[in-house]
Amino acid sequence: VNELASAPLGVFDSGLGGLTVVRALRAQMPHESFIYLGDTARVPYGTRSHHTVTRYALGCARVLMKHKVKALIVACGTVSAVALDALRVELDVPVIGVIEPSAQLAVKLAQGQRIGVLGTNGTVASGAYPRAVAALSTRSEVVAQAAPLWVPLAEEGWLEGDVPRLAAERYLQPLLAAKVKVVILGCTHYPLLIPVIQEVANRLSGEQIPVIDTGVAVAQAVELFLADRQRQALATAPGSLRAYVTDMPASFRDVAERFLGSPLAHVEQIDL
Amino acid sequence: VNELASAPLGVFDSGLGGLTVVRALRAQMPHESFIYLGDTARVPYGTRSHHTVTRYALGCARVLMKHKVKALIVACGTVSAVALDALRVELDVPVIGVIEPSAQLAVKLAQGQRIGVLGTNGTVASGAYPRAVAALSTRSEVVAQAAPLWVPLAEEGWLEGDVPRLAAERYLQPLLAAKVKVVILGCTHYPLLIPVIQEVANRLSGEQIPVIDTGVAVAQAVELFLADRQRQALATAPGSLRAYVTDMPASFRDVAERFLGSPLAHVEQIDL
Repeated sequence: VNELASAPLGVFDSGLGGLTVVRALRAQMPHESFIYLGDTARVPYGTRSHHTVTRYALGCARVLMKHKVKALIVACGTVSAVALDALRVELDVPVIGVIEPSAQLAVKLAQGQRIGVLGTNGTVASGAYPRAVAALSTRSEVVAQAAPLWVPLAEEGWLEGDVPRLAAERYLQPLLAAKVKVVILGCTHYPLLIPVIQEVANRLSGEQIPVIDTGVAVAQAVELFLADRQRQALATAPGSLRAYVTDMPASFRDVAERFLGSPLAHVEQIDL
Repeated sequence: VNELASAPLGVFDSGLGGLTVVRALRAQMPHESFIYLGDTARVPYGTRSHHTVTRYALGCARVLMKHKVKALIVACGTVSAVALDALRVELDVPVIGVIEPSAQLAVKLAQGQRIGVLGTNGTVASGAYPRAVAALSTRSEVVAQAAPLWVPLAEEGWLEGDVPRLAAERYLQPLLAAKVKVVILGCTHYPLLIPVIQEVANRLSGEQIPVIDTGVAVAQAVELFLADRQRQALATAPGSLRAYVTDMPASFRDVAERFLGSPLAHVEQIDL
């Protein structure tokens, strides 16, 4: 028996948003078990310096390493943008971020045409998506746009009606005017708004614009990686999910279900 | 000469928002000097536990105490709600929060009728405004409503048009349906949206609804306090403003002008 096969996968984010990645991972690999850490005491990371984000990310990663995870999934756009190399240097476990898998999928779908990225101010300013795409293709250009309103809309559950639609129009318009053919949702909060984003993207462009949920792209990459190393969990029982947060477990649980797509029974608080 | 008169006033907030309080303070007392500290490395406080907020607030206060401030103004709704007593116990300087002055002004204007409070989830959940009003009046009830979208709208400078108007309608409707006669803006980001908030409040109610900027209420309280203790700065020259942040001084300066109402020349970064 491969001992690593039965080990859990570790996933961390600055807060709640990474639960949309867990949702995609569990849909893709229902037999895997997950340990989730949301650093809710220090959320959001997007407004912090690279130095601070790297320090926080290493703290989160060390907690998950104690659970003997077989791989570490960085479900935070900001950490994936600025601290992935530092994590890979420091840790003895494979580290998978949200940016590379999404960039790969986008390059495949764009077929040399422009790629749009929507993210937090921090992710946009980091230039991580243009760099990741440039490493994969010399043909596809990236156009990025910050979409700050989508985070509170997702957290509040305000997912339908004029305000989500107008916010989607405001943020998608510059991308579609630049003729992007694929849109990456570069923040893990945004998948809650996929229905309105998809509708607006198709309507404004008059085309079918693929909208990439980074969680789905990551789940495909993780499945491939585990298959390649023969580290997949046996298909004997549904996998488990344990969640930890660094602050406010009760209010985390209240909103978690909307992000996870199913109830989250137990959330424990830990100190970092 | 009263040595304390020439000392600066210390103001701190979890981030940017407190600059609207500084703006109101400087408008009311142009000869006073201010030291501002924005704890941008740990913003926002509103999603954190009382214990964490108290610890952060004490850290901020100690930095300002080193500048020999003559009073400490807590320009953060969350800190004012949960940590004011801890600061008063710990510090040898008068501590003025944003809640008591706003509650006093609201009670005066409401004349026994209901008072509406809009704030972050944390401020609403803390129940601080209902407590502050109950301590002043047994007649006025408080109805509170969280308005999470207003923070990114203010930061993005999206202050006009359908989305700010629809967001204002969504958040004001339950308050006006409950027949509030005064509205307190219990988050220091919200004053940027006062024009649209005032328009919507008057239109939906068919009345003139006073909208209280907590910065203005605090400035009046601080002026009274200084006059009472004879600690006012001499009216010889305009006061100065020095600003410190704990992370990202450049992006702070970019957005600060919108909150402060005038350019912010120098911002220094410090570690807490």
